Amino acid sequence: MPSVTYELLAICPHTGARRGRLTTPHGKVETPAFMPVGTQGTVKGIGSEDLEAMGFELVLSNTYHLSLRPGSERVERLGGLHKLMDWAGSILTDSGGYQVMSLSDMRRLNDEGVWFKSHLDGSEHFLSPERSIEIQGQLGVDMSMCLDECPPYPCTREEAARAMQRTHLWAPRNLAARREGQAVFGIVQGGVHEDLRQESAQLMASLPFEGYAIGGVSVGEPTEMQYPVVKFAAPLLPKEKVRYLMGVGHPQDILHAVGCGVDLFDCVLPTRMARHATLYTLNGRVNVLNKKWEEHMGPHDPASLFPPVDRYSAAYIRHLFKAKEMLGQRLATLHNVSFYARLMAEIRQAIEHGTWPELQQRYARA
Amino acid sequence: MPSVTYELLAICPHTGARRGRLTTPHGKVETPAFMPVGTQGTVKGIGSEDLEAMGFELVLSNTYHLSLRPGSERVERLGGLHKLMDWAGSILTDSGGYQVMSLSDMRRLNDEGVWFKSHLDGSEHFLSPERSIEIQGQLGVDMSMCLDECPPYPCTREEAARAMQRTHLWAPRNLAARREGQAVFGIVQGGVHEDLRQESAQLMASLPFEGYAIGGVSVGEPTEMQYPVVKFAAPLLPKEKVRYLMGVGHPQDILHAVGCGVDLFDCVLPTRMARHATLYTLNGRVNVLNKKWEEHMGPHDPASLFPPVDRYSAAYIRHLFKAKEMLGQRLATLHNVSFYARLMAEIRQAIEHGTWPELQQRYARA
Repeated sequence: MPSVTYELLAICPHTGARRGRLTTPHGKVETPAFMPVGTQGTVKGIGSEDLEAMGFELVLSNTYHLSLRPGSERVERLGGLHKLMDWAGSILTDSGGYQVMSLSDMRRLNDEGVWFKSHLDGSEHFLSPERSIEIQGQLGVDMSMCLDECPPYPCTREEAARAMQRTHLWAPRNLAARREGQAVFGIVQGGVHEDLRQESAQLMASLPFEGYAIGGVSVGEPTEMQYPVVKFAAPLLPKEKVRYLMGVGHPQDILHAVGCGVDLFDCVLPTRMARHATLYTLNGRVNVLNKKWEEHMGPHDPASLFPPVDRYSAAYIRHLFKAKEMLGQRLATLHNVSFYARLMAEIRQAIEHGTWPELQQRYARA
Repeated sequence: MPSVTYELLAICPHTGARRGRLTTPHGKVETPAFMPVGTQGTVKGIGSEDLEAMGFELVLSNTYHLSLRPGSERVERLGGLHKLMDWAGSILTDSGGYQVMSLSDMRRLNDEGVWFKSHLDGSEHFLSPERSIEIQGQLGVDMSMCLDECPPYPCTREEAARAMQRTHLWAPRNLAARREGQAVFGIVQGGVHEDLRQESAQLMASLPFEGYAIGGVSVGEPTEMQYPVVKFAAPLLPKEKVRYLMGVGHPQDILHAVGCGVDLFDCVLPTRMARHATLYTLNGRVNVLNKKWEEHMGPHDPASLFPPVDRYSAAYIRHLFKAKEMLGQRLATLHNVSFYARLMAEIRQAIEHGTWPELQQRYARA
């Protein structure tokens, strides 16, 4: 019996959207779900008590960052990442590959793995499928991602194909490195090329992964480029497993992908935008520093009120950002992450109740 | 009927410590009480919901900062500082004088007032007793402090006497500038000189202030220098009014001053120390970055546990500080401010129950 299972509960009558439920060693996760990003074992500025209050069941954390600090061997000695964060819900980690290729000083990449220098202290490290799965096992998370090669954007068809082939070469090595009961998700590559995505999905589906991700979609390309790729790539993934679109996205991007049959999302946008003074609302994104909020004692959007932020006025939040007070970043983060929690709850409801068109209408400007 | 009244409930049988109750337009404040410092209309990193959860009834905010940003005229248009912060408890503001003299580029100081340039944008401003009381009236706080002249440390007896004389000159001007119902506290100066303190206390007591502060004690001098000054200055203040020791201090300093008959305190130490990785505990101050906490899955001090911080281990909090995650500063701030809330609650209990010696024992290393 695999430690992570997916149950399909309903399909939207208007789109291919799936209402489902993941069961992990740490409980249930109602899908479609958004994972707040806790890069270094914390969603910036907010604690596990806040995530619980917002109703999250699953968060994402970053293998690259945690393996460098505090170190995965240490996290394992301390009882695992759940215990360290005191988080009773589920955790998914990425493989570390994307950060190695984007943040670190990458020294060499070949079929064996990737050699890199830490962005923290320049120390030398090695990441391979085996090592990535080992680190994620040490962290003790519920869902591990396989190490893939994610080509940069833009890239030629040849580069996309080569990255895909290495991802395929690595796939069984990821699986072979699993601990007893460790759930690992496969990643489908192939860039913007339908035939490559098809080939990649077929190869991955033939291997016993507990879930499948669409990789290489959110790596710097314009948002509108993603849509056709998601549209043809999502239905290629096995129906009986959970489907995860990595690194996506704005509310509109998530709505589109859910409509294509995707179940899981993660993205730094709500937290990063919050720290940069931008709130998501049903009326579109709002810059809290805008002069129009200077003496506005109401909320930015009366239809987007989330505790404990909703007690504060737009004027107060603008003041906090102007005064560079960290409470401003905290409140904005709580607002945006709550906005995403509500978005996903309403997506799940709309699939169940057959009210997808009304939902799309409601989020048309978000 | 003055808007702020003080009721003396009990006197400690072991010391001169007073158990009392302030009544303000925003409710009751059990004393002795510590006021967390919300310099710019927020206690750094924590919201009104956190202050409520910790049981605070009174906070301090800074006239100098708020008058420059967002501006006291604006705060008044917005309904006052309580409404801006959404804080239902009481607020006391300082006069702004101390910050003008320590933070700004002070241009000229004479009997009329003080001309200075803002530390934010270099703009020119003027502060006088009348203007300070006007600003505090615009902020709409429960208790305003009179503008005094606070001499630097160290200073000669002559300098202390001159500052005291200007403070006396300004005292009635502060009172004359009050709005209907605005409660103003007088400040006793006189440095380390008993006769000057006596003279100052007498002059101030002759004026209809709603409370009295011991000024010029915490302005850079070593902590042990404060004790004799507090010891002879506190009993000089009117018994029927609340007594406030400005800018003090560590738990030991507060215990000493309460024993001398002081009722109110404010200090940036618990919040500033927290941001600099130092926690107050019953076992003394703790540096959360110390290597000994690296794999310590328990708390720093099992006798100092405060929600929501108490769910996290010393190892996690060290990791957050190492990784420069703002959750670390928030949790440390909540810990220290909670430590002070408990200290004051236990002080009030000890006075009521006659258990001061046990209390002193308990906090001997704090």
